[in-house]
Amino acid sequence: MDAEIIAVGSELLLGQIVNTNGRFLSQQFAEMGINVFYHTVVGDNDRRLQQAIELAESRADLIVFTGGLGPTKDDLTKETIARHLGKQLVFDEEALRSIEDYFSKKGRIMTENNKKQALVLEGCHVLRNDHGMAPGMVLTQAGITYMLLPGPPKEMEPMFLSYGSQQLQNRLQSKERIESKVLRFYGIGEALLETEIEDLLENQTNPTIAPLAADGEVTLRITAKDESKEKCEALISQVEAEILRRVGQFYYGSNQTSLIQELVKELTKRDMTIAVAESLTGGMFQEQLTTIPGVSAIFKGGVVSYATAVKAKMLHVSEETIATYGVVSEQCALEMAANIRTELESDVGISFTGVAGPEEQEGKPAGTVFIGISYRDGRSHVQSLNLSGSRAQNRIRTVKYGCHYLLRDIQQM
Amino acid sequence: MDAEIIAVGSELLLGQIVNTNGRFLSQQFAEMGINVFYHTVVGDNDRRLQQAIELAESRADLIVFTGGLGPTKDDLTKETIARHLGKQLVFDEEALRSIEDYFSKKGRIMTENNKKQALVLEGCHVLRNDHGMAPGMVLTQAGITYMLLPGPPKEMEPMFLSYGSQQLQNRLQSKERIESKVLRFYGIGEALLETEIEDLLENQTNPTIAPLAADGEVTLRITAKDESKEKCEALISQVEAEILRRVGQFYYGSNQTSLIQELVKELTKRDMTIAVAESLTGGMFQEQLTTIPGVSAIFKGGVVSYATAVKAKMLHVSEETIATYGVVSEQCALEMAANIRTELESDVGISFTGVAGPEEQEGKPAGTVFIGISYRDGRSHVQSLNLSGSRAQNRIRTVKYGCHYLLRDIQQM
Repeated sequence: MDAEIIAVGSELLLGQIVNTNGRFLSQQFAEMGINVFYHTVVGDNDRRLQQAIELAESRADLIVFTGGLGPTKDDLTKETIARHLGKQLVFDEEALRSIEDYFSKKGRIMTENNKKQALVLEGCHVLRNDHGMAPGMVLTQAGITYMLLPGPPKEMEPMFLSYGSQQLQNRLQSKERIESKVLRFYGIGEALLETEIEDLLENQTNPTIAPLAADGEVTLRITAKDESKEKCEALISQVEAEILRRVGQFYYGSNQTSLIQELVKELTKRDMTIAVAESLTGGMFQEQLTTIPGVSAIFKGGVVSYATAVKAKMLHVSEETIATYGVVSEQCALEMAANIRTELESDVGISFTGVAGPEEQEGKPAGTVFIGISYRDGRSHVQSLNLSGSRAQNRIRTVKYGCHYLLRDIQQM
Repeated sequence: MDAEIIAVGSELLLGQIVNTNGRFLSQQFAEMGINVFYHTVVGDNDRRLQQAIELAESRADLIVFTGGLGPTKDDLTKETIARHLGKQLVFDEEALRSIEDYFSKKGRIMTENNKKQALVLEGCHVLRNDHGMAPGMVLTQAGITYMLLPGPPKEMEPMFLSYGSQQLQNRLQSKERIESKVLRFYGIGEALLETEIEDLLENQTNPTIAPLAADGEVTLRITAKDESKEKCEALISQVEAEILRRVGQFYYGSNQTSLIQELVKELTKRDMTIAVAESLTGGMFQEQLTTIPGVSAIFKGGVVSYATAVKAKMLHVSEETIATYGVVSEQCALEMAANIRTELESDVGISFTGVAGPEEQEGKPAGTVFIGISYRDGRSHVQSLNLSGSRAQNRIRTVKYGCHYLLRDIQQM
């Protein structure tokens, strides 16, 4: 099955919102083994939508529309499709009742244009909207399946997951399974990683290997096709083993995870508490730790020592260190990490000091960074970085390197 | 000028990333008065990209490509366009030097495939990449302008703003000016704000007023068309004055700004230093403060007191307060704000304590938040919130409310 996703809405073409629906549906289709070759965004314009439909019919056998099912004059998706397919629009009794309920519950008066939302294509399968008023629709005609979904992600996503996906699976004839796995790497550039596995990339057929770089991380998506889930997984794990044999030291996790999630997982597994002292990162490492529910079991707290005086007062970095080496130094990073650890009686202390930029500091160029790590048993070390990004990039990379070093460290304990 | 935006990359069709480039460029084009009728997303596939180009040529006179300029085998945007237009690819000396510089600075080895990034379409205008390696390109042939931009937003956005936009303006023939201004509000819902200015929204023609809500903020974009910049601005300021007369108490800034930027601006203007104590927000407020270069003049530092023990040890919240009221309380927020202020000898202290969720805490439901503000002259107050979002939303809203309250407070001093 080849799909095309058509998002309808002038607000997308004006840049007021971003097409997250295209992404969500693409993810779902990738998992279901449905190919997506195009996304199209078109405005609330009858003629241009009509042309987009005709084009999609020439190259896809599943066309999914998002948006344009609402009550206003702009909303014309189902009207255009109805005319194009020679179908009537008829009232769906259940949808009409649920719209009336919605208004009576809210104590608001239902205007006539709201009724319009209960109109559906005759002969279609109606998809219930549990989070809004406009129902979705599925219809197969002349070998092409048309699926109409509402625009707001809060309505569209649960509708697709609860009702739409099942409808597509019923209409899918294929016996072929597609499975994929994403391997995540940090501390290695995309080009270098590709060079290390060049022969695998060149000879790929099944599974395929797709590299992607973002925010200093590189991922490899391995995708296999076969008749069963088990056979797909066997194909994937063979390639995975060979990749990890070559670049395993940069690997940190698979599928939906992040460096910080893996770090929290490892700390929790070992029952190790952590305390943090941040200078150039201004709290970003701690902020990321605390995105994770339940982190309170291992994270106690920390200090943001932006000013030098705070490094002295709250972290007890010695005057001598500051005078001799400066605050952007290996020595300062070490004292920050050790002192926050003892102050908060934790198993590990981590510190970040450096120059985010754009200005230099203490004669040290923007991008100079020291990450200190100190353990309860007295072991400690410092990693230095020379980053070359913007202020924002340098801060993000610093936090990721901190996760990366600490994660590797405790995994090897 | 009618534009079509073509994003190239299989990672978009697999749902690994979302097409934010389409949104960014659409916003820019809306401001420049360039119509955007379609976005297209196509994979790293020569034949399908070729078809997308031909289709775009039939309906647009500006075609902007994002993505596919990188070093790997997948990246084929410029190769496909070169063949389609009958152009050679030639080395751009400046781009080549900057790639070599990049690798020598990093102390990393440049692989042969990185050189490929310095290849450009013969006769094109080269757009410098200040944040990455692949340069952009602009070329006009047979009345159609082709612009090639890199895929990563961190490279694409500054390249467009610094170099691409000017190139398009040179090629635009229109005599009509379009100017717009975005007014930003916090602490009022979209529906309520729209009700307050309903008559203005209904009677709009020139300027137009477009409301948009995101992340708890509401913006109004006022857009005017006239023959000169001055005439546009006069039309805008008339409408702006009327809007601010009605909902001015929720207004915090215009165009590209943020609550935190406005707060730093006001603190800096008044030479007021700030210290911060964060619990549920885990460092997010301080992280946002430190995104702003030069914030060190007013921001000293603070504490992330995630565990109760840290509130006692580093912030000296009294045992009695914790035992009697709990850490999620007005009293705890007040002590946190006052104590971090005196500890770091600052003019103002701000604190955040509460329940981010998903679990309740101390019998208080998720979304219960207290924000404490304490001034050097002894004045202090607490704002309480009852938020109903997810853990992530509650944290973001808490930080924004903190900015909002403190900003209003010091503006009225």
